[in-house]
Amino acid sequence: MVTGGKLENIKPIISVDAMGGDLGPSEVVLGIAKSASMNPEAKFIIHGDSSALSKLIERKSIQDKCRIVDAKDIVSMDQKPSYIIRHGKNTSMWSAIQSVRVGEANVCVSCGNTGALMALSMLRLRKSPGVNRPAIACLWPSRNELGFNIVLDVGADIKADEQDLLQFALMGLNYARRGLKISRPRIGLLNVGTEEHKGRAELKLAHDLILIASKKENFEFVGFIEGGDIPSNLIDIVVTDGFTGNIAIKTAEGTSRLISEKLKFAFKSNLFSRIGALLSAPGLLKMRKQIDPSRVNGGVFLGLNGIVVKSHGSADKTGIASALNLGITLNNADLYDRSSNEITMEKEEVKIK
Amino acid sequence: MVTGGKLENIKPIISVDAMGGDLGPSEVVLGIAKSASMNPEAKFIIHGDSSALSKLIERKSIQDKCRIVDAKDIVSMDQKPSYIIRHGKNTSMWSAIQSVRVGEANVCVSCGNTGALMALSMLRLRKSPGVNRPAIACLWPSRNELGFNIVLDVGADIKADEQDLLQFALMGLNYARRGLKISRPRIGLLNVGTEEHKGRAELKLAHDLILIASKKENFEFVGFIEGGDIPSNLIDIVVTDGFTGNIAIKTAEGTSRLISEKLKFAFKSNLFSRIGALLSAPGLLKMRKQIDPSRVNGGVFLGLNGIVVKSHGSADKTGIASALNLGITLNNADLYDRSSNEITMEKEEVKIK
Repeated sequence: MVTGGKLENIKPIISVDAMGGDLGPSEVVLGIAKSASMNPEAKFIIHGDSSALSKLIERKSIQDKCRIVDAKDIVSMDQKPSYIIRHGKNTSMWSAIQSVRVGEANVCVSCGNTGALMALSMLRLRKSPGVNRPAIACLWPSRNELGFNIVLDVGADIKADEQDLLQFALMGLNYARRGLKISRPRIGLLNVGTEEHKGRAELKLAHDLILIASKKENFEFVGFIEGGDIPSNLIDIVVTDGFTGNIAIKTAEGTSRLISEKLKFAFKSNLFSRIGALLSAPGLLKMRKQIDPSRVNGGVFLGLNGIVVKSHGSADKTGIASALNLGITLNNADLYDRSSNEITMEKEEVKIK
Repeated sequence: MVTGGKLENIKPIISVDAMGGDLGPSEVVLGIAKSASMNPEAKFIIHGDSSALSKLIERKSIQDKCRIVDAKDIVSMDQKPSYIIRHGKNTSMWSAIQSVRVGEANVCVSCGNTGALMALSMLRLRKSPGVNRPAIACLWPSRNELGFNIVLDVGADIKADEQDLLQFALMGLNYARRGLKISRPRIGLLNVGTEEHKGRAELKLAHDLILIASKKENFEFVGFIEGGDIPSNLIDIVVTDGFTGNIAIKTAEGTSRLISEKLKFAFKSNLFSRIGALLSAPGLLKMRKQIDPSRVNGGVFLGLNGIVVKSHGSADKTGIASALNLGITLNNADLYDRSSNEITMEKEEVKIK
């Protein structure tokens, strides 16, 4: 059990729910292999159907980095969180969170049902001391030097009052400072206009609370921002409630898909444009990488006694690897001061099968 | 005064606030000239600084289509709606709405401050009988046959209960049927998931109310949709509250701007990509037109005794012309059954200076 001090040398041990993704466990194992090759120190505890998983792991020759925990049941995308809380004990998701709860892993990664993952994480890991409402933080492609901003909450809950919004600001601050090494992050509060008289009552109250906190915690509060500012270089962190954040992120993804479709169609419109597309391909590929959501795949659950990373359900091996890499980064950044956590964290290396 | 029957032959007389746009009255007059050339029947009553306007109108030789109403004051973008209600009598915006109120024009178009325009429109035109909360409806580039969906409310107010959401659905239905000639529109209710147990309480109640209305009013209700579905071909109308709708539209615009910037940068990355861009230019231009917001510029205020079209503040002549054209289309579609309106509508042609 960890009783004090920073754990800078803690080795990344990632607990992976292998059964939740749309593309099945084989894609998850490919993602693990990719992440393992990039992070030689990392170890993985993989939860799911052991017979299927052991074959997949052997095929990629990563047995020495993995341990399998057998879990027969799978949480499906349409199951209600309340059902999983009552009947989900034998699922790979429950099992993956359990590894963090008992301290054999530092981070849990799942591609599964977001609502169930949040409900189980809250139930099994519990909220951090002083946190009323956990949040899901995502990385959003932006004009920043880093290439992305933090947006939270993007869907842990459907509402947030002024105190919750203040906590989201402070959780985002911690994420930016420890996880992304931004020393003085800039925070904006999402609203329908930048003028102080605009928006809902709780936003006006949150504005004042975050402004006061900015002096104490040494961050920059830029005040209200609008939807168009989310990918801007005005801010590093966007604070909003989970309903609005979820709509915003999905709207951006939808817009991006529409433009991408129209672009492909434009390039195919005649012979000249096809040749043009070939000539422009390297630049376009680079641009695509910059705004590719899978490059920064991973919603991080903040405000819990442990780190949980939610990958896109449809993520391919690249997306899954980037969610795992994010988990490893956050593990190494010691996102939470583990000494204050009540969960057990064993520093010993995980047993390898 | 109109006392009954459909006014299919009513001539389009558009009242234009010439002073509100970011680019000033000269751009507005260029937009009017463009719209006038496309709509030979249309007449314009132009509100603002008469000495400046008369020169601009003469320069474009459209004197025979225009009448100027002198208004000395301008509503600025940062003025509060409450201030304009008390002190805005001499503004071009007030004057432009007045023309609709007294029935000398059928539609008002302004590029000015949205909050002030909505407040003045509500004050001077009054809400339609039975309407609790007016809405702003915008046209959103989509995969539909028409190329766009209707989204409302995108910012008339910051909240909406289940009854308001039902009214938004019915207003959107009327707009789609009369304005866009879609006989059986498909309506979706924006939420954080498509499952029936998701979202806020008022959304679940609105879901049931709209479902009942769909049988009576003969439209298709597709249920809950997500942010990513806004530009889809699943629906023709997206119903949401004004806070969420405003964030969504601005997020989409911001995403679109980010991609466009990255795309330009990608094309400039080397000589081959520059040549590629030249070869692909016609296809790309066509695509750009399809997703260009100025092609479908214009938020329509629904639920009032008169039609008010809000153009983007930054609209250029093309954008302004498309807002005017939208106003003319809606005028010709007889969006509201004018016989039920309490305002005076004179069928006589407007006097030309």
